[in-house]
Amino acid sequence: MHSDRTPLYLDDLTVGDTFITGERAVTAEEIVSFAADYDPQVFHLDAEAAKETFFGGLAASGWHTAAITMGLLVRSGLPLADGLIGAGGDLSWPTATRPGDTLHVESVIESIVPSRSRPDRGIVTLRSETKTSDGEIRQLFTVKMVVFRLTPKGPQPV
Amino acid sequence: MHSDRTPLYLDDLTVGDTFITGERAVTAEEIVSFAADYDPQVFHLDAEAAKETFFGGLAASGWHTAAITMGLLVRSGLPLADGLIGAGGDLSWPTATRPGDTLHVESVIESIVPSRSRPDRGIVTLRSETKTSDGEIRQLFTVKMVVFRLTPKGPQPV
Repeated sequence: MHSDRTPLYLDDLTVGDTFITGERAVTAEEIVSFAADYDPQVFHLDAEAAKETFFGGLAASGWHTAAITMGLLVRSGLPLADGLIGAGGDLSWPTATRPGDTLHVESVIESIVPSRSRPDRGIVTLRSETKTSDGEIRQLFTVKMVVFRLTPKGPQPV
Repeated sequence: MHSDRTPLYLDDLTVGDTFITGERAVTAEEIVSFAADYDPQVFHLDAEAAKETFFGGLAASGWHTAAITMGLLVRSGLPLADGLIGAGGDLSWPTATRPGDTLHVESVIESIVPSRSRPDRGIVTLRSETKTSDGEIRQLFTVKMVVFRLTPKGPQPV
């Protein structure tokens, strides 16, 4: 497991490497505030009215869970030297984040594929699980990231 | 194309139905504000420093593009009677959202599968493209949603 914050380049990574972030508590206030901007649905906005919905109570937007996950990964997950640059991936929310949850993210490198056309980079597939302190899984995300080698000039704009 | 806001239930939907949202302009200030909370990386925070990165200038977090997309879908996309409830899906960001972009979302229903075990609902697969006014694609998301039938009691909490 990588546990320090030394900046990492493509050649520092190995399939099976794991990364565990710090924790972040999620409050009802934050759930409602995010939803008001980006996902204004009753089950994300109003704890009382949410009781009559699919969720049976206030639940965070899945996009809020995704955003919190990214914040944890950036602040205490993978210290990639040139940043966490995702091209996309497979996302699911087995359960919804609830007020009072404390989330962390556990990640593992599933594959590393050097680019054929651009020798300065590769595509790294990372599987991340966003979990509560009780181990309930709130999000699964398997992402393909662009990761750079250490080069004299660093990454070039595309 | 559905163009009014009549609440829709499972039996109101047909494969091939399309939905086009209104537009939302994205500012540099909003890009930086979202990133400060949820994706604090230099290419999302600092226009000048971002020039030396992969993006070559300030770019929105992909999660910001996703959140904006959801806001558009909720406010002017699919008027599902019991809400937009996504279980997960396949997400990609072919290009990054930039300051000054004006985004909208074009969606199409790809499949509708009634639940075998729960007759009050089905799984609807929706493919959404988030586009600029020039037609550049900023996000593709194919999501599986839980959609309810119109029933006397409405959906029950799970």
